[in-house]
Amino acid sequence: MTLANREKKIVLTGDRPTGPLHLGHYVGSLQNRVEMQDRHECFIMIADTQAMSDYFEKPELVARSVREVFKDYIAVGISPKKSTIFVQSKVPELFELTSYYMNLVTVARLERNPTVKSEIQQKGFESSVPAGFLCYPVSQASDITAFKASIVPVGEDQLPLLEITNEIVRRFNRMYGEGVLVEAQALLGKVDRLVGIDGKAKASKSMNNAIFLSDSPEIIREKVFSMYTDPNHIQVSDPGRIEGNVVFAYLDAFFEDKEELQSMKKRYEKGGLGDVTLKSLLNEILQKLLSPIRERRQSIEEEKEILEILKAGTERAREIARKTTEQVREAIGIQYWA
Amino acid sequence: MTLANREKKIVLTGDRPTGPLHLGHYVGSLQNRVEMQDRHECFIMIADTQAMSDYFEKPELVARSVREVFKDYIAVGISPKKSTIFVQSKVPELFELTSYYMNLVTVARLERNPTVKSEIQQKGFESSVPAGFLCYPVSQASDITAFKASIVPVGEDQLPLLEITNEIVRRFNRMYGEGVLVEAQALLGKVDRLVGIDGKAKASKSMNNAIFLSDSPEIIREKVFSMYTDPNHIQVSDPGRIEGNVVFAYLDAFFEDKEELQSMKKRYEKGGLGDVTLKSLLNEILQKLLSPIRERRQSIEEEKEILEILKAGTERAREIARKTTEQVREAIGIQYWA
Repeated sequence: MTLANREKKIVLTGDRPTGPLHLGHYVGSLQNRVEMQDRHECFIMIADTQAMSDYFEKPELVARSVREVFKDYIAVGISPKKSTIFVQSKVPELFELTSYYMNLVTVARLERNPTVKSEIQQKGFESSVPAGFLCYPVSQASDITAFKASIVPVGEDQLPLLEITNEIVRRFNRMYGEGVLVEAQALLGKVDRLVGIDGKAKASKSMNNAIFLSDSPEIIREKVFSMYTDPNHIQVSDPGRIEGNVVFAYLDAFFEDKEELQSMKKRYEKGGLGDVTLKSLLNEILQKLLSPIRERRQSIEEEKEILEILKAGTERAREIARKTTEQVREAIGIQYWA
Repeated sequence: MTLANREKKIVLTGDRPTGPLHLGHYVGSLQNRVEMQDRHECFIMIADTQAMSDYFEKPELVARSVREVFKDYIAVGISPKKSTIFVQSKVPELFELTSYYMNLVTVARLERNPTVKSEIQQKGFESSVPAGFLCYPVSQASDITAFKASIVPVGEDQLPLLEITNEIVRRFNRMYGEGVLVEAQALLGKVDRLVGIDGKAKASKSMNNAIFLSDSPEIIREKVFSMYTDPNHIQVSDPGRIEGNVVFAYLDAFFEDKEELQSMKKRYEKGGLGDVTLKSLLNEILQKLLSPIRERRQSIEEEKEILEILKAGTERAREIARKTTEQVREAIGIQYWA
């Protein structure tokens, strides 16, 4: 969808806290959030409940990452004054909504979901899929509807998840009446996914092939210079390939002078542009991008400060989720007492 | 299990509010609860969340039945001063526990559960099982563990459900540490199930073959005299069958003079004891049993009074569930802040 009209909308977005955020998150969503927070009402969720559906054997990683992800948010310029940053599990109304929505979706429907299906394969769950994992799209429906979000920024691969949310909303509206739950629209990211520095898959925490927002200058440099390029491009004068070349993928994402980039690509393909020159340029660009982010990150190292801001954001989120949950109970007709 | 030792234990029990309670509930569980409330700490749950997993299309029936079931409790002598009577969905901590436990049980395990399996067949859900229905045994695990109940009165057919709870408890204890969650033991009821007045199945609300605790004297009489006996026992002098004879099944459950009952059975089998005599006796017994229950029921017709007592019980239950949930979060390591 285009956001042609400038009407203020409610946006829900967030991340699973399973490690610090990286450049893939930056171009895929974080940058966008910083822009959106001035135009829309943004709820940014640190999705620990969702992370637990997958990392339930590593709760310490989830707990640690809640803080890391929060620091990353502040570091990239998400402002707790403009956006509501909150911890999912500390808004217990979301658990309650999930319970009501679970009655409105069949097991077969959840099993047919292509996103969950491929994740189950990836994780090797197969016949031992935890119930919580199969049902996390229902929990997502709670997150989205609790805040009456009409816009949800997602990757292409997450569209089937949003479809489940909207199916639940429609079923709820038919069964219990309209006026409480709102359908949401996907906002597809500009950059689809950032490739890993090994060129093999998308940048990801678990593959350790990402440049983290919190990486030191030395590590950034090291990672840039270890990037996969064209293995047949040995001499500077050799012709090189752009396709599958990680350095160019990153330059596409981070080098703003597109004209210059275009001419560099031509020179590279013809022969005469060395990898070291390219990597030096990329390193310079990334150092410049990440240096202020790292500085801002370091300015909030205090644990107490983090918790205070998170608590305040979560309380604000809770207020809204509480109201929606009351409306949901009233719509269903099981409020009993206020 | 035998309750040989007189140590005070924590008991969790309850009913799905899907209609008023009947004599089957009375002999199967209510009577037992009245006895237990002096010896144990009893939590009696009006399981509306669980009812919704099944009756989500009839929330008005669930809501109405919350009040009916509560009145039935008071009517049979469950005292809100001794037992904690509460409404399940109004203890939102139970939803939260369910979310954590859902990660500790696989979809395959839930699908293999014989109780849920046969219920799915009965209800004709088959390929369209709602996720909430498949997962209600996980929600039961929350109910039981939230109050650290060590005793759960169940029917034989519900034993597999309790097994899921205990599996979750053991897995939680192995993964996150012992000391918070307690395994529970089943307390099997004396009378297994009371047959329906039509002799076809167990007495149930949905089959409309039960004598309700709130039935009027006329209705009780009518139901008793319509009970299925032995269709070949036409003349008083004919020999009659005891097996499958509903009147005898009810006399077994409600006639206290077992010696007299034994000799009546012999006379009936031989011939010389008429159905009308038997039904008159049963009617007399049931009228005597249900008359004080009905009176007590009528004494609390005030809606406001019901809500006040339910609110107070629910608040007491919530206090405990809240503590357990905090302990659970701390054990997992995702408490973040108090």
